[in-house]
Amino acid sequence: MADNTRLAALSFSGGMDSTTLAAHYDHQGYDLLLLSFDYGQRHHRELEAARRVAGHYQAEHHVVDLTAVGALMPGSALTDLTVDVPEGHYAADSMRTTVVPNRNAIMANVAVGIASARGAEIVALGIHAGDHAVYPDCRPEFLTALQACVTSALDGFATPVVEAPFIHGTKTDIARRAAELGAPIALSWSCYNGGAAHCGRCGTCVERHEAFTEAGLLDPTEYAGAA
Amino acid sequence: MADNTRLAALSFSGGMDSTTLAAHYDHQGYDLLLLSFDYGQRHHRELEAARRVAGHYQAEHHVVDLTAVGALMPGSALTDLTVDVPEGHYAADSMRTTVVPNRNAIMANVAVGIASARGAEIVALGIHAGDHAVYPDCRPEFLTALQACVTSALDGFATPVVEAPFIHGTKTDIARRAAELGAPIALSWSCYNGGAAHCGRCGTCVERHEAFTEAGLLDPTEYAGAA
Repeated sequence: MADNTRLAALSFSGGMDSTTLAAHYDHQGYDLLLLSFDYGQRHHRELEAARRVAGHYQAEHHVVDLTAVGALMPGSALTDLTVDVPEGHYAADSMRTTVVPNRNAIMANVAVGIASARGAEIVALGIHAGDHAVYPDCRPEFLTALQACVTSALDGFATPVVEAPFIHGTKTDIARRAAELGAPIALSWSCYNGGAAHCGRCGTCVERHEAFTEAGLLDPTEYAGAA
Repeated sequence: MADNTRLAALSFSGGMDSTTLAAHYDHQGYDLLLLSFDYGQRHHRELEAARRVAGHYQAEHHVVDLTAVGALMPGSALTDLTVDVPEGHYAADSMRTTVVPNRNAIMANVAVGIASARGAEIVALGIHAGDHAVYPDCRPEFLTALQACVTSALDGFATPVVEAPFIHGTKTDIARRAAELGAPIALSWSCYNGGAAHCGRCGTCVERHEAFTEAGLLDPTEYAGAA
């Protein structure tokens, strides 16, 4: 294998944020190592979206099977079919039921291990300020603590830098950045319900549509309900 | 489900250290949630040993399938059959090839997520001072950084304490503690080669036998070669 100093490993859900993240590192000239995670999420369609976006960038893409992990974590609306996906605005307290505890820490640490073994320079996460209220493992404090943990866990071995270039920006900033970079947002998937089209009612649909509207851009998403 | 405030989730390989760890928390009156990880390790026999030890304690036990993760991490003698398992003493530089980068961080973070979802009070790791030279993710600095990361990742959600009661002790101390607690060491598995019996030559076999000898205890292990 050739020198991989310009390889960036991305935690890549196939949603709007990670699609824009792929565009960001592609634009910077990195080879992309796109890592999607199957943790038994109800919105399994995001993995098909991830394949389509990876194809767009002709990038190396793996769907990492973590279904055994998700199966042992009851109580989240994302993985537990006995818990309903809440509707309404993302910031609402009800979105708390969509938390899968430590999810980003698990996915990021898997990405870090693979990145170290493969010699990738960067591990990148698509987290942003709109995630902060609901998801503690999307906050700047988490990113700092994660990098410290990675540094100690890999002392003396290839150690990627963990980056989250959108962490201080809003979803609207991501919509703008996606447009600037020509990211294939129409191929991406956000909806937490796993229907044939975006539902238009769950927190991520509401947030996705709002981002395009606030950015003054056309939302390329087809919604089943009013977003 | 009943109140789980006395539930301890253990990263549980089925080796001597984690078998003694199970004995330690069983002795303290915790219910045990034993989590073994299948990351495609060559010494897959440790998972059978884990099942036997879990049976001894009549404990809840899961083998978490992380083979998809191991498959994406080439270069370690533990997972990559093109890399030989080194022989000789554990502290030797050659043991470096047995590192699976970020392995403990991955397993610990999975255990933390499951523990949080299940309301377990503790996540416990069997790491000890003998691991420190070779494996950075077994050192006290790592444990401190991991706890900080866990605390930030789970802010506002059930947050287990990460413990490693043997971290400042030696393998010999663990052999003594195992004997005190009547831990079923004969059921456990250490050898990095996946043969029918412990090989007696790899680093973990040498270390295991040395621990019993130094503790003045009979080693219950049957070795294929001289240990």
